[in-house]
Amino acid sequence: MTGQGRDASTPPGPPVSPATMMAGEIAEQPQALARTLDTLLPLRQSIRELDEDRREVLFVARGTSDNAAMYGRYLLEIHAGRGAASSAPSLATHYKVDRDLTDTLVVAISQSGATDEIVATQQWATSLGARTMAVTNVADSPLAQCADLALVTQAGIEQAVPATKSHTTQLTAIAVIADALGPPDRSFAADLQRVPEVVDQLLSDQTGIQQAVEALNASDTMLVSGRGLTYGTALEIALKLEETCLVPVRGLSYADLRHGPIAVVDAKVAAILVSAGDGPMVDGMVDLASQLGTLGATTVGIGGPPVFASTCNVAVEGGRLPESVAPIALVVPGQIIVEALARTRGLNPDAPRSLSKVTRTDH
Amino acid sequence: MTGQGRDASTPPGPPVSPATMMAGEIAEQPQALARTLDTLLPLRQSIRELDEDRREVLFVARGTSDNAAMYGRYLLEIHAGRGAASSAPSLATHYKVDRDLTDTLVVAISQSGATDEIVATQQWATSLGARTMAVTNVADSPLAQCADLALVTQAGIEQAVPATKSHTTQLTAIAVIADALGPPDRSFAADLQRVPEVVDQLLSDQTGIQQAVEALNASDTMLVSGRGLTYGTALEIALKLEETCLVPVRGLSYADLRHGPIAVVDAKVAAILVSAGDGPMVDGMVDLASQLGTLGATTVGIGGPPVFASTCNVAVEGGRLPESVAPIALVVPGQIIVEALARTRGLNPDAPRSLSKVTRTDH
Repeated sequence: MTGQGRDASTPPGPPVSPATMMAGEIAEQPQALARTLDTLLPLRQSIRELDEDRREVLFVARGTSDNAAMYGRYLLEIHAGRGAASSAPSLATHYKVDRDLTDTLVVAISQSGATDEIVATQQWATSLGARTMAVTNVADSPLAQCADLALVTQAGIEQAVPATKSHTTQLTAIAVIADALGPPDRSFAADLQRVPEVVDQLLSDQTGIQQAVEALNASDTMLVSGRGLTYGTALEIALKLEETCLVPVRGLSYADLRHGPIAVVDAKVAAILVSAGDGPMVDGMVDLASQLGTLGATTVGIGGPPVFASTCNVAVEGGRLPESVAPIALVVPGQIIVEALARTRGLNPDAPRSLSKVTRTDH
Repeated sequence: MTGQGRDASTPPGPPVSPATMMAGEIAEQPQALARTLDTLLPLRQSIRELDEDRREVLFVARGTSDNAAMYGRYLLEIHAGRGAASSAPSLATHYKVDRDLTDTLVVAISQSGATDEIVATQQWATSLGARTMAVTNVADSPLAQCADLALVTQAGIEQAVPATKSHTTQLTAIAVIADALGPPDRSFAADLQRVPEVVDQLLSDQTGIQQAVEALNASDTMLVSGRGLTYGTALEIALKLEETCLVPVRGLSYADLRHGPIAVVDAKVAAILVSAGDGPMVDGMVDLASQLGTLGATTVGIGGPPVFASTCNVAVEGGRLPESVAPIALVVPGQIIVEALARTRGLNPDAPRSLSKVTRTDH
């Protein structure tokens, strides 16, 4: 096992502006992802053992971690054929629901491992018979200490309030879980191991980034959309935009957008659309880009095949990875755009208003 | 069995402006809810029989129906102690996921019963061993015809594009399911049977409605928040505002709001907060109202106990019902506000831009 280093001082090599902590942490991701893979891939057998006799997978998370869980829900269903859902922590913390979890594997996700309600929900699940895995960046956190198995991501200390490298290492941990629980298919693990290098290339290839920042800066209203495996990516980019740039942003699935909110789309809207380069969602994402363009919106496409890129007003490189692992890389250009947009608007992306690093839902 | 009438021409008695179809349909809700209860309560034994040997409940829905499903997820967990989740239709329609549903009771919800992807997802579930219930307003729809059990809501024909009476009758059908699957507790059914009368009172009691419309009309940015059982209510009011008033609106859980989006709250924001009058979420909703007020936002509180109402800038009556069934009534003042706000802004609430009554996700 290599890459045990958890030192946050790894020098950021790629040409991202080191002007902010957020930019520095975005740039550290290739190393953070590689360290996380080195640490977690050897745990696949332990994950499989913990999963024995379990039927359902239940994610417990909030905020950025919940966006990672969204990727997990799709990936476990699609790659591993497993029922996967997200729990509302309030069912544990406030409603004290009493139900049988003896067929359930709980995956609790928290960067700090110290968010009270996530820890409390994990304990609730254990008391009802669940087996638990913690995905956290802090090895000696309550979440890791109380879990049956801790998957400790190797992001290193994250100082900027908007999560970047802790999020992509969470996605990586989730992909390792899916690899462990899925079919004995070496191609998935091979694809996963290519991710750090692809992210490294993305940090160098700033195609479309500056135009995307300009398009978003000129808009009154932003929305972000993806579908299926990239839905969580859309939610995460929307959350980053909202908390960092202080504008209300909707993260919407392609389908939910068409079931109502499309009514608000007009020429004042800039839409970020996230697509993998392959998979069953590509055609729909191309159609959506076309429809939004017809309504007058400015479309910024991240990823996708050439037909998607050419349908969007601005095309941003998203890394060439198969759909199943593409979301780990697709969020990175989104992070870069958000960090640059915040600075363009004279805001400090490292410390957004009203937020702190460890969120307490209740006071 | 009484109340079989499905005639949409039931004269709206209460003093809601009949100027729009939407207003007329809002006013029909007491009768629609009473007819639905009369039709569905006798089906509780059939629901219990269908549920035998089932562990999980899986909702399948989109848009307004998915907001109803959110109420169902909480209610089934809290009242019936059952694991309940929502499925992403794309897992069926696009990813063709192959997984075991022989322990699952699927509840597919669609007003028309004709939304292709919901019908397709129900068929997918059946093919994988699920038992299925359809909650639909159209008895001879594909969704009803293909289900193991059809719970046909008695809203009558709904002509306005924004769903109102079809939504609250869906909520009612879900409460009947929860009553069937929950403990033999007659108080829940008794509470449920009080709902039509409470909604009738709400239509007469317009306390706070006009001030709420003025506050929202004066704001640049709106958000809607609830928690637990009222989270789905918040999502639904946000969707109605968005599609009818053509403004981007976030529907957020109390907790998700605190995990990021609270950064965007300032004096330009008007927030609708939805609270039941009792239950474990009240204290948190009062705190949230107080915090948003401190940040300068204008708060419109629907429901809640007196301490909640007095903490909000505008207090709107929400009906006096226990938390478990309160959401069926709490959405009604939201509908009234949305309809009035649309007219105030010179928009036609009956036919929002870019939307049609039966949504096709894919073209």
